Amino acid sequence: MTLEAVLAKIDENLPQATDRLLDLLRIPSISTDPAFVADCDRAADWLVQDLKTIGFDASKRPTQGHPMVMGHADGPGTHIMFYGHYDVQPVDPLELWHTPPFEPALEETDKGVVIRGRGSSDDKGQLMTFVEACRAWVQVHGALPIKVSIFFEGEEESGSPSLVPFMKENAKELSADIAVICDTGLFESAVPAITTQLRGMVTEEFSIKGAARDLHSGMYGGLAGNPIHVLSGIIAGLHDETGRITLDGFYDDVPELSDEMRSQWQNLAFDHASFLGDVGLSEPAGEQNRTPLEMIWSRPTCEVNGIWGGYIGDGFKTVLPAEAHAKLSFRLVGQQDPDKIHDSLVTYINARLPDDFTVVFSAHRGSSASQMSTDNPVFEKSRQALTDEWPRPGAYIGCGGSIPIAGFFKDILNMDAMLIGFGKDDDAIHSPNEKYDMESFHKGTRSWARILAALAK
Amino acid sequence: MTLEAVLAKIDENLPQATDRLLDLLRIPSISTDPAFVADCDRAADWLVQDLKTIGFDASKRPTQGHPMVMGHADGPGTHIMFYGHYDVQPVDPLELWHTPPFEPALEETDKGVVIRGRGSSDDKGQLMTFVEACRAWVQVHGALPIKVSIFFEGEEESGSPSLVPFMKENAKELSADIAVICDTGLFESAVPAITTQLRGMVTEEFSIKGAARDLHSGMYGGLAGNPIHVLSGIIAGLHDETGRITLDGFYDDVPELSDEMRSQWQNLAFDHASFLGDVGLSEPAGEQNRTPLEMIWSRPTCEVNGIWGGYIGDGFKTVLPAEAHAKLSFRLVGQQDPDKIHDSLVTYINARLPDDFTVVFSAHRGSSASQMSTDNPVFEKSRQALTDEWPRPGAYIGCGGSIPIAGFFKDILNMDAMLIGFGKDDDAIHSPNEKYDMESFHKGTRSWARILAALAK
Repeated sequence: MTLEAVLAKIDENLPQATDRLLDLLRIPSISTDPAFVADCDRAADWLVQDLKTIGFDASKRPTQGHPMVMGHADGPGTHIMFYGHYDVQPVDPLELWHTPPFEPALEETDKGVVIRGRGSSDDKGQLMTFVEACRAWVQVHGALPIKVSIFFEGEEESGSPSLVPFMKENAKELSADIAVICDTGLFESAVPAITTQLRGMVTEEFSIKGAARDLHSGMYGGLAGNPIHVLSGIIAGLHDETGRITLDGFYDDVPELSDEMRSQWQNLAFDHASFLGDVGLSEPAGEQNRTPLEMIWSRPTCEVNGIWGGYIGDGFKTVLPAEAHAKLSFRLVGQQDPDKIHDSLVTYINARLPDDFTVVFSAHRGSSASQMSTDNPVFEKSRQALTDEWPRPGAYIGCGGSIPIAGFFKDILNMDAMLIGFGKDDDAIHSPNEKYDMESFHKGTRSWARILAALAK
Repeated sequence: MTLEAVLAKIDENLPQATDRLLDLLRIPSISTDPAFVADCDRAADWLVQDLKTIGFDASKRPTQGHPMVMGHADGPGTHIMFYGHYDVQPVDPLELWHTPPFEPALEETDKGVVIRGRGSSDDKGQLMTFVEACRAWVQVHGALPIKVSIFFEGEEESGSPSLVPFMKENAKELSADIAVICDTGLFESAVPAITTQLRGMVTEEFSIKGAARDLHSGMYGGLAGNPIHVLSGIIAGLHDETGRITLDGFYDDVPELSDEMRSQWQNLAFDHASFLGDVGLSEPAGEQNRTPLEMIWSRPTCEVNGIWGGYIGDGFKTVLPAEAHAKLSFRLVGQQDPDKIHDSLVTYINARLPDDFTVVFSAHRGSSASQMSTDNPVFEKSRQALTDEWPRPGAYIGCGGSIPIAGFFKDILNMDAMLIGFGKDDDAIHSPNEKYDMESFHKGTRSWARILAALAK
C-alpha cells in the first residue's frame, strides 16, 4: 500500500474535506453552557455518521454529561487510540468577533487562507485532520494500514467531568498500544512537534477574612486591619527577588533538565523576544538564570489568576472590607505532588496571618505533570514522518499548559500518549476570531497519513 | 426667657415631633440615584414648609443638582449658621432590611425605643433635632434667643457637586458668626461630644498594566510578568513592619498630639476592646506605639478600599491578566497636602514597576484635614450646655472620617465650624436597618435648646 497515492487523494479531496469541517463547525457545541446540550449531542451524531462512512464501527456513548464518540477500525500491527474533543469554548465577548463564530468561512489573509470560526483550531479542525487522513487511506486502499480506534470527548472545555468514570468503565475498549492526542500545536507556528512534557496544575481559591462586616475606613481606618493588605503581603511573598517560589519544599521534586533535552531545546533557538513582543512585552520576568523555554516548559510556576476585595464599582466607597479573595494556580513539573503543594501553601498563608485574620480555602484541584518517554519507537517513527512532511525537522518539545487526558491514559490505562498537533500560536483559541490555517489543516492531514504509514512499518 | 419652659415644651411635644420626622423619613430622597430626583425636591419642599411654620424666612434654592434649603430667623446677639443634609444613602442590599427602609416606624428594643428607617440618623433625624429645638423656643417665647440661619443640602451622600459653587455664589447670605454642623455622633454612644478634629482624605484609583492582552498562564506563565503580583508588591510595601506608611515625606506635615489633647483623650478612657469586639476584631492593627484613639483620630492612614484583576467569576480560568486595579484612600491629618501625597504615591509606584509595566491613575481627589480652634467661647458654652443635658460631661473629640463642609466654611467663608451630633456607633448609617435612638432624638433636641440659650448669654 503506497503512501503517495494517499497523499495525492488528500490533495485532491481538500475542498470536500474543508466543506465537511465547515459543516461540523456550524454546530455550536459549547459544552459549558446548558443552552447548547442538544448541539453537543448533534456534533456527536455528526461524527458518528461521518466515521461510519469510512468504515469505522462508530457509536455515541451516553455519559452523565455530553456523550463520547467511539469508533474502531481493524487493521494489522500497532493499535493506536486517537483522542480529540468536539466541544468548543463559549464565544463571548461576541462583539469582538468580525464574523459570526458559528458561521465558519474561508478567509484570505496576508499569511494565506484560514478557516475562521469557533472550534476551527480547538479542536474540531485538529481532530478532522486525523479523520480525513483515515478517509484518504480507506478511499485509496480500502482499509487502514494499522489498527485505529477513535475516542472523541464532548466536555474538554468544561472540566471533563465524565472522562475519568468513562475511561474506568470502558478500560478494555479504550486500551491500545499507544494513545495519540491531537490538541497541541506546532513549535513557534513553524516546526512540527511532538509534545513530550506537560506541566501539571494545582488551582486554589481562598479568602482572607478579618472583621465580621465591612467597616467605614474613616471610623476604623488605622485601627482595624485590612484583609486586602494581608492578601497583598501573602501574594507579594510567594516569590523572592530572584523569581523563585518561596513555599517550603516547593522545589523538592523538581528535576533539572537532562543534558539531552537541554541541547534539543537550544537547537530550537526559541525567539522569546518575538514571543513576548507579540503580546506587548519585552523582558522575561521569571526565575533568574533560567532560559525562557525552561520558564514556560520545565519550571514550576505560581500565578494569581484573579483577585478581588472591597468596593470595585464606579466611583469611591471608603470601605475597609471584611474579606479579600484570590484565585491562584501552580503549574507543576517533574514529580511535584499537588497535595503537598496545597499543604505547603496552607502552611505558608497561616504563618502570615496577623491576629484576628483567618483564611478559608474554597477550591483545590490538582493534576501532576506528565513526562512521556520517547523510548517507544512510535515516537521516533512519527517524528520522522513529520520531518518528511514539513520544511523543518520534527522536534520533541515541552508545553507549559496542562492536558489532563495524557495523564489519565497513563494512570488509568497504563498507556503512553503521543501529543501531535498543528495549531499555531496566533490561532486565538479560547478568544474571539479563532482560526485554523488551511496549511495546518492540509499538511496536518498529510502528516497523519504519513504517520499511519510509518507506524505500519 | 427661661430655658425650663422650652425643655418642658420639647418633652410635651415629643410625639408630634416624632410624627414630623417620620413624615420626612417617608420621602425617599436618595441623591445619588436619578430615579429619586423628584423625591429629593419633595424633601426640600417639606423642609421649607416646616421652617415657615416656625417663622423662618425659608426658601428652596435651585442648583445644577438637588436644591438647597435656606432659612433665616432674626434674633439678638450671636448669629449661627446651622448645616444638615436632607438626602440619604441608597438602600441596597434591600433584602437585608427587616422593615421597608422608607416606611419608618418606632421599634422597642433592648436598649430602648428606636426610630427605624433610612435617614433616621444620617441626617434627617439629626437635622430635625435642631428644627424641633427652634420650634419649642418659638412656641414658648414667640422668638429665638439668638439669630439663626439654616442651610440644608441635598447632595451630601453623592459628593456634594453643587455645594462649593453655591457657597461661593451666596457667600454673603451664608456668612454668620459660626457654622454649626449636625452630622456627627456621641462619643462611644454615651458621651456628648464636639468634634474638633477631622481627618482629610485623598482618594486614588490606579491600574497596573502589563501585557497587551490577557495571556494563558500555561503558555506564558513563568515567563511573562503578572500585574496582580506587581500590584500586590506595591500594596504590601505601603506599610512597614511597624505599621508606618512608607511614602517619602508622608509624615512631614503630621503634628504630634498636644499634651492638652492627649490628656483629654486619655480621660475618655476609650474602650477599644469593645469598639473592635463589636466587629469581630480584638487587636489594634495600626501603627505601633500609638494609642487606639490616635490611630483613628490623629494619625494618617492608607487603606486599599478595593482591588480587582484577572478572572473573578465562578470556577477557574488560568488567565494571566493584562491589568490589575486598586482603589486606595489616605486619611490626612495636620497640614498634610493632598497633592503632595498624590505625587509621593506616583513616585513610589513608578519606582516599583518592573520592566514592561506601566501605571495609569484614573481618579484623584483630595481634601485637607480640619482642626477647629476651641478658642471661640461658643465652643465652651456649647460643651457646658451638653454637660447639663447628658449624664456625662461634654468632650472635645476627634473624628476619623472626613466632613468636607467644615473645611468649606473655613476656606470659602472664613468661618469656624462646630460639629455636634447625637448619632450612636450602632446606628448603621449607610447600612441596612439604619436607626436613630429616641434618646438621641429627644435629648438631642433638648441639647440644642440648651445651646441656643447658652449662646444668648
